[in-house]
Amino acid sequence: MSDGLFLSFEGIDGSGKSTQARLLAEHLRGAGREVVLTREPGGSPGAEEIRRLVLEGDPDRWSAETELLLFTAARRDHLERVIGPALARGATVICDRFADSTRMYQGLSRADLRASVDTLHDLMIGIEPDRTFLIDMDPAEGLARALSRQGTEERFESFGADLQEKMRAGFLALAREFPDRITVIDGAHAPDQVAADIRARL
Amino acid sequence: MSDGLFLSFEGIDGSGKSTQARLLAEHLRGAGREVVLTREPGGSPGAEEIRRLVLEGDPDRWSAETELLLFTAARRDHLERVIGPALARGATVICDRFADSTRMYQGLSRADLRASVDTLHDLMIGIEPDRTFLIDMDPAEGLARALSRQGTEERFESFGADLQEKMRAGFLALAREFPDRITVIDGAHAPDQVAADIRARL
Repeated sequence: MSDGLFLSFEGIDGSGKSTQARLLAEHLRGAGREVVLTREPGGSPGAEEIRRLVLEGDPDRWSAETELLLFTAARRDHLERVIGPALARGATVICDRFADSTRMYQGLSRADLRASVDTLHDLMIGIEPDRTFLIDMDPAEGLARALSRQGTEERFESFGADLQEKMRAGFLALAREFPDRITVIDGAHAPDQVAADIRARL
Repeated sequence: MSDGLFLSFEGIDGSGKSTQARLLAEHLRGAGREVVLTREPGGSPGAEEIRRLVLEGDPDRWSAETELLLFTAARRDHLERVIGPALARGATVICDRFADSTRMYQGLSRADLRASVDTLHDLMIGIEPDRTFLIDMDPAEGLARALSRQGTEERFESFGADLQEKMRAGFLALAREFPDRITVIDGAHAPDQVAADIRARL
């Protein structure tokens, strides 16, 4: 499934990653490429059902381990139904969050699960993006941006500034762990300047 | 979580395993033991929700891999919320189907997944029953029994005689693979005779 190009965007809430994913998709479509713009958790009908099962209701009703299995199931469905077929026909896939978000969130709450996260990923997913853009952002600024929108991401948006700091640090640690794949982009500029930076780095 | 006794019942549809699980529970309760009688897939509120997600709707909407992840998530929740706490307080847990059912079903439809089934089990479940009773039954007789009841197990009951033959063979192969854990019980006799046989073998 590696004929096409697989790109992911990661970043804390309010970092502008979703905007940048959309701007890059528009740019590549303007250049004549087929682009599949998708997001996680979710991204396929089955994965969206699993997403609702995880994210709705009492946040504590699933343990970290069960949640990890459910998100991996959703990712597997998304991969089989959307990402894999698109890559196989040569399309560019742009995914708003992928496995790095799982690594980062589990790393914050249950760092002891990282080996399980990696084993599960290798066993049941087995693919990484060709390139990941980490939109780096000062959490205070990102939080202000996120709060200015109304929450479409439920739990992911309900964290405070301290947690945003930890998430930023978690993402930057992943960028150091995967320097060949993850490109850190300064998200503090105007969106069109950030978009130009991403295009230049692609 | 190994203070209590963990027993599971396996067998093809109509083998009488659910009846035997209940009869053994009643017998042990009569002898003064605390017994938690439960079943899979499902067995806890979260696991029942995952069960519905897997078993309702188009049977082909989930791939074997995604279904395996979802059932493992359900089993993890069942283990955390029901089986583990019961064993920790010294209760006897009797589970109508457990991981052997997953091994058998995946072995029939996607034998290439057996290594993934085992890796996932070791990673996220990590417990086997102390004893498993496999109620062995001629499929023609079992099918007649199953059809005489009205289907409460949806997809698991909708298979024909040929598939029941394969399931029987799959369970018997597991009994040969785990001879110390799995006890094969002849299910062709009257229920109270089968129940007496199980009590004698326990």
